[in-house]
Amino acid sequence: MAEDMPQMDELRSWRERFHTSLYDDVLPFWMKHSLDREFGGYFTCLDRDGSLYDTKKHVWLQGRQVWMLSRIHNILKETDGTDGRYLEAAELGARFIRKHAKADGNRVYFSLTREGRPVFIQRKMFAECFYVMGLAEYARASGDDSARQEALDVFESVQKFARNPALLGRPQLDGMPKTISLAVPMILLNLIQEVNGPGEDRYPELAEWCVEELLKHFHADRRIVLETVLPNGSYLDTPEGRLVNPGHAIEAGWFLLDYACRSGRDDLKQTAIEAMDWSFDFGWDKEYGGLYYYLDAGGYSPLQLEWSMKLWWPHCEALIGFLMAYRESGEARHLERFRQVAEYSFDRFPDPEFGEWYGYLDRRGEVAMRYKAAPYKGCFHLPRALLLGEQVLDELTQRQPAAGRSTAR
Amino acid sequence: MAEDMPQMDELRSWRERFHTSLYDDVLPFWMKHSLDREFGGYFTCLDRDGSLYDTKKHVWLQGRQVWMLSRIHNILKETDGTDGRYLEAAELGARFIRKHAKADGNRVYFSLTREGRPVFIQRKMFAECFYVMGLAEYARASGDDSARQEALDVFESVQKFARNPALLGRPQLDGMPKTISLAVPMILLNLIQEVNGPGEDRYPELAEWCVEELLKHFHADRRIVLETVLPNGSYLDTPEGRLVNPGHAIEAGWFLLDYACRSGRDDLKQTAIEAMDWSFDFGWDKEYGGLYYYLDAGGYSPLQLEWSMKLWWPHCEALIGFLMAYRESGEARHLERFRQVAEYSFDRFPDPEFGEWYGYLDRRGEVAMRYKAAPYKGCFHLPRALLLGEQVLDELTQRQPAAGRSTAR
Repeated sequence: MAEDMPQMDELRSWRERFHTSLYDDVLPFWMKHSLDREFGGYFTCLDRDGSLYDTKKHVWLQGRQVWMLSRIHNILKETDGTDGRYLEAAELGARFIRKHAKADGNRVYFSLTREGRPVFIQRKMFAECFYVMGLAEYARASGDDSARQEALDVFESVQKFARNPALLGRPQLDGMPKTISLAVPMILLNLIQEVNGPGEDRYPELAEWCVEELLKHFHADRRIVLETVLPNGSYLDTPEGRLVNPGHAIEAGWFLLDYACRSGRDDLKQTAIEAMDWSFDFGWDKEYGGLYYYLDAGGYSPLQLEWSMKLWWPHCEALIGFLMAYRESGEARHLERFRQVAEYSFDRFPDPEFGEWYGYLDRRGEVAMRYKAAPYKGCFHLPRALLLGEQVLDELTQRQPAAGRSTAR
Repeated sequence: MAEDMPQMDELRSWRERFHTSLYDDVLPFWMKHSLDREFGGYFTCLDRDGSLYDTKKHVWLQGRQVWMLSRIHNILKETDGTDGRYLEAAELGARFIRKHAKADGNRVYFSLTREGRPVFIQRKMFAECFYVMGLAEYARASGDDSARQEALDVFESVQKFARNPALLGRPQLDGMPKTISLAVPMILLNLIQEVNGPGEDRYPELAEWCVEELLKHFHADRRIVLETVLPNGSYLDTPEGRLVNPGHAIEAGWFLLDYACRSGRDDLKQTAIEAMDWSFDFGWDKEYGGLYYYLDAGGYSPLQLEWSMKLWWPHCEALIGFLMAYRESGEARHLERFRQVAEYSFDRFPDPEFGEWYGYLDRRGEVAMRYKAAPYKGCFHLPRALLLGEQVLDELTQRQPAAGRSTAR
């Protein structure tokens, strides 16, 4: 594939923008405002200017921020060098969750008070997943083997919860159709990569099971990725079964593409890229731009009142996804899609005055919520997209093979 | 208070509009589309034109529709006469929920399959409340004393759930502040009136407890009604504690005003009306019109992504509330507020093509969801507002005292 120079200039310019955003805007925001030096852990309810509107600490974001800061430390160690500030901040969160976030039976609370007392526990397994993700990367950053052991131990429980969701306490009533959820194989596939160190290949069978389960949600006949399907993969004609979350579907696509690249499963690459293309075609708002949050595959109104909003994270996933798709396909279409998402996003989400991105725009692209951190928005999707995006842009502009420094690691 | 003729003309014209909407538009929509003659009960997932987008049956709306149709039957029996069609439709729902909606321990499921198999149960007591409400009114419509006994029996359980929410299965963790919720005394006060027949006065002590609890949420210093406060009524400075739902607050106001009128508690009338005024002042969108769904009393962005949407039901509550406030106060301000809400609502919510109202507009007042019925929207808020509104408008235009036919009964 021959690259013309203007395109290389464009890619270098995006690479520069991603790098600068990450290290001069986004990470400084979290390092300045989220660290709780008094009680440990991270504040997760930050207003536009970084001030607190609540002192509660949401555990999804504790685990994810431990992961993010540890990853940054690990990357800087290998490249530009580091003064250790990100590791120290990661340790602040790791110590806090290890002390306070665990409930009985390797369950993990959803939210804690500032001091670490439990507030709420979900009947879902995602707090557990992000706990594993955080500790696994933190163990590599710190060399703390007990953190690695604990990540592996909780990961065993997560696999049990995935096989038997009744363990999470949600009753399975007689009239509720038995279904499977896209989020479960996605997060497990991601966690397998997280708990495996470089060059390690534990859980190969689980990974293949995840791929199988993921693919049940990819419906080529409808050119759509469904959140919820019957256990054999067939379509369930209800609001739950018709639900499409285009950003989540694109995230599933790049998880799968990354797995395909790592494991040499070339047969999966095309499927993964197609799923991203379908989701973009269906999910992009042709009138106002941006990716819808939710859609109904049958064309009905979704039940979710916030369906037409434009959230930061689906756009973050699409930035990573279409860069990876372009790297693998070399097709102009994928570069064009990356550009479309990047221009939409950098035009609307950043807050030049106080830093970081707004998280929630209305359908027309106007800021709907002024806060920068909330129970589901923290130091994760945006810095991850900037970091992984920069890595792919490096590969594209330097034309280096991905080698040991593959994207999602 | 002297009424000038143009104002009387206006009130008569609204009375006509309410009556016509109720009997020629809204009730026919539900009678035509929601009745499941094959399995019993009501369909609660109806698209714009009344066609089904799901066959699930949501129990809040089963109970509320039984109430609504029974109430219409009871009203028509006393006034214009009836061919029994509403009673027959009420029976269709009452039989279905009595057969299928009860779980162990007088708990009531949240949703059922079309055939009546249980799909989901909430860790809240509102399905139980609407079950009581439906059966109590149905018993008066049908003369079925077993329905009345069952309503009273489940109401006893509801009181237990209200005193001890742990019975509903939600763990009370150590770091979760103990709080009280506006919805609980509201619904109990309402249910007391529902289970009491005309002239009956059971549960007077419970009613006074409800009033006390309600008033803890009315914060005169901030001119605001809060959804969640500490058990002694004090302000909790968190997103939960700062949450304001203006339509819900106005509903609390008219529940209290109605109770005050019925029980001769003149001292409460002013408080109830003030609470509606505060909620309107704070909750009306000065830029685009309409009542916001949620606001934060501290001026932060609420956590609820749908906060700025304009929902049909807060406007329905405001129609009833300001008509009742005007009836009691005679102040032009309250008529003006009624007019403002009525003009906003009748301009935007109705669907002249297929009938009924849309339920969900975006902040600018454009239709956001095309369906007419959904898990929380059914044959209830709108027909109740039209029915009770017509009754108050009758009182205002005929200048008859409310007598035995008080509004919320």
